[in-house]
Amino acid sequence: MNTEESARTPCVERSKQLLARSDELIVPGCLVHKRNHDMLDKGYPVYARKAEGAHFWDADDNKYLDYLMGFGPIVLGHAHPAVIEAVERQMREGIVYSVGHLLELELAERILSKIPWAERLAFMIGGSGATTAAIRLARAVTGRDLVLRCGYHGWHDWTTPFVAGVPPTTRALSIEFPYNDLDTLADLLEQHGGRAAAVIVETLRFRGPEQGFLQGCIDLAHEHGALCIFDEVKTGCRIDIGGVSVREGLTPDMATYGKAWGNGLPASFVAGTEEVMTTDAAKRVWIAATFHADTLSLVAIRTVLDHLESCDGIAHQWRMGERLMAGVNAACEAGGVSYRLRGWGPMPNPENDESDNERVLDMLRRCLCRGVYLHHNHGMFLSLAHTEEDIDRTIAVVRDSLAEGSTT
Amino acid sequence: MNTEESARTPCVERSKQLLARSDELIVPGCLVHKRNHDMLDKGYPVYARKAEGAHFWDADDNKYLDYLMGFGPIVLGHAHPAVIEAVERQMREGIVYSVGHLLELELAERILSKIPWAERLAFMIGGSGATTAAIRLARAVTGRDLVLRCGYHGWHDWTTPFVAGVPPTTRALSIEFPYNDLDTLADLLEQHGGRAAAVIVETLRFRGPEQGFLQGCIDLAHEHGALCIFDEVKTGCRIDIGGVSVREGLTPDMATYGKAWGNGLPASFVAGTEEVMTTDAAKRVWIAATFHADTLSLVAIRTVLDHLESCDGIAHQWRMGERLMAGVNAACEAGGVSYRLRGWGPMPNPENDESDNERVLDMLRRCLCRGVYLHHNHGMFLSLAHTEEDIDRTIAVVRDSLAEGSTT
Repeated sequence: MNTEESARTPCVERSKQLLARSDELIVPGCLVHKRNHDMLDKGYPVYARKAEGAHFWDADDNKYLDYLMGFGPIVLGHAHPAVIEAVERQMREGIVYSVGHLLELELAERILSKIPWAERLAFMIGGSGATTAAIRLARAVTGRDLVLRCGYHGWHDWTTPFVAGVPPTTRALSIEFPYNDLDTLADLLEQHGGRAAAVIVETLRFRGPEQGFLQGCIDLAHEHGALCIFDEVKTGCRIDIGGVSVREGLTPDMATYGKAWGNGLPASFVAGTEEVMTTDAAKRVWIAATFHADTLSLVAIRTVLDHLESCDGIAHQWRMGERLMAGVNAACEAGGVSYRLRGWGPMPNPENDESDNERVLDMLRRCLCRGVYLHHNHGMFLSLAHTEEDIDRTIAVVRDSLAEGSTT
Repeated sequence: MNTEESARTPCVERSKQLLARSDELIVPGCLVHKRNHDMLDKGYPVYARKAEGAHFWDADDNKYLDYLMGFGPIVLGHAHPAVIEAVERQMREGIVYSVGHLLELELAERILSKIPWAERLAFMIGGSGATTAAIRLARAVTGRDLVLRCGYHGWHDWTTPFVAGVPPTTRALSIEFPYNDLDTLADLLEQHGGRAAAVIVETLRFRGPEQGFLQGCIDLAHEHGALCIFDEVKTGCRIDIGGVSVREGLTPDMATYGKAWGNGLPASFVAGTEEVMTTDAAKRVWIAATFHADTLSLVAIRTVLDHLESCDGIAHQWRMGERLMAGVNAACEAGGVSYRLRGWGPMPNPENDESDNERVLDMLRRCLCRGVYLHHNHGMFLSLAHTEEDIDRTIAVVRDSLAEGSTT
């Protein structure tokens, strides 16, 4: 590879070899969002060796400033010392038990204090576990089957957007509606309202909720006897500790949380109002499993809350994200490419004109070569480990990559 | 509590208070198998403070020799130093990443070497994740929807035996058949065979598979164009590293694993034959999630395999389990109660005459008072931390409890 090429395409040879080997061992659909041929073809690395703070090292030993943070779970930073210490200490007392554990109560109490509209919760594992538990509770409480959904709620049968292997009758029980489109939701509820158990909506997508959209989801659901579930798996411990519902002062019937609460441990839970969660129907719902409320996730939650509180961590994510968006957008505008970061500070969402795809990817590859990992089309995440210097360097890297790209 | 009472009923006052508090915070269905009013009413503790080796301490500080081991995941022992060290070391390099990680390949290769009939796998999280992934793959590969199932395969919609909140049309896509009953399976396949995507069967239940039962499941499934999935979530790293399939030299199309592989970390995966897992249909299946193949579970798997191999850990579980079953059964027979431990060594399964329930529970409570936690009706698990002395003390405790019970 000559010098010019090495400045515009990162060396991901080892990633390439590993992905080829993976194809001989691992079913592609497992982790397909993290390592796939499409990303490799675009010039992105697909295997990591290690991560620390706001950085990761790929299999070829390139070091990147990370703006995906594991697709959302890492909020304090990779390999955070306080999480390591808390998990290590808890491991010395066990992980999962033949009975419940004291920590469940401590954390349930503390979590609920952060989500004022909620009075009960259930600990699950992984975000899909939480959204599925919420849907099960809603179906039990309403005695209805249909789900109206908006966004990505995980890989389970009722919701996965990739339908291979999902029975049509299962798929038929959930209907998608577009984000920020109350008219379509209203129409769907007119048509199917008597059958609707729940409206579930990812609270933050793309550029964010339009004024009145989320309250509208709640109101429309209730008008038709359905429950409203906010999917806050990505937004909890980011937009606010309790997510968009808490920041905006909204009261859904339930909300689902995961990702950032555990800083890498698979903590997740569904929170809900007393009215819904203490019904006899809700009490009959089986959502138990071996690893639910595992104590490592619980002490990770405790550590994340401690640090978000003591470091003003939500405000930090907003500040860093807004600085990043403003700087990157200005650089791209000046450089004449359509790549823009939109949405709310802690979760910048990239967009670009489709006609501009090749130039955007060329720019992003040059950023990779300079050690900055910006995604081309997936929502990104800030963390407490991202500093002002990191952000300013990123903006400079974008600017330099564009300047270089225009001359080669 | 007077002395006589304290010898026959453990003090679980703190457990009782905690469960009451839990009812004000946590939805009952979450962890209902681990902490519930029914167990408390029977005299069992329902909250743990900590665990180490083969023991746990309940919230009232009673110490018990543990025969449930967290309902199966703990195979090396609670708070095992090598697992703590491996997980702690990995945490210093990160947990989950924005791309794949090298460990996936190392562990995939090593795991597949232990399951000779399998050539591909997918890492999931929790046992339910693995069984659901296997069903999704089977439905995709066969283009059919119906599942014939035998045993407990987790809490997800398609299989949960507790139907509150599960749509009838989803339930209708899976039909249960009794263990060791090939005639019923054959009838069901005659009736529905053209629609059957998979026969999924827990390989070890109750007293174990009758000669030919598991091969019969495979053969019948194949005769009707369905795939056969062995649910080895409980049996992997116990009956054999690869579970019953490997011990018995059987070749299902897929098998699901979890529990003991992670010694408390939520490791799980589905393994399958090249023929099934490399079809175009299987490649289109989306079974990806944030925490799948998390590296803490992967290093836990590595540690579990290291120790099972270096300590002859499978044989140890068989020896301890068979010693326990023989001793407890002899003591119970001599004492005139119908409690018996049946099944295969590493996973003793309790049974008793229903008419004898009260006497059995009286005996088990007296065992609890003597620091031995035997379950009244759930399958139990040995571990590498259970010693011959532990087993012999358990047998003596059963004998003493029976002797004492007959005189008071």
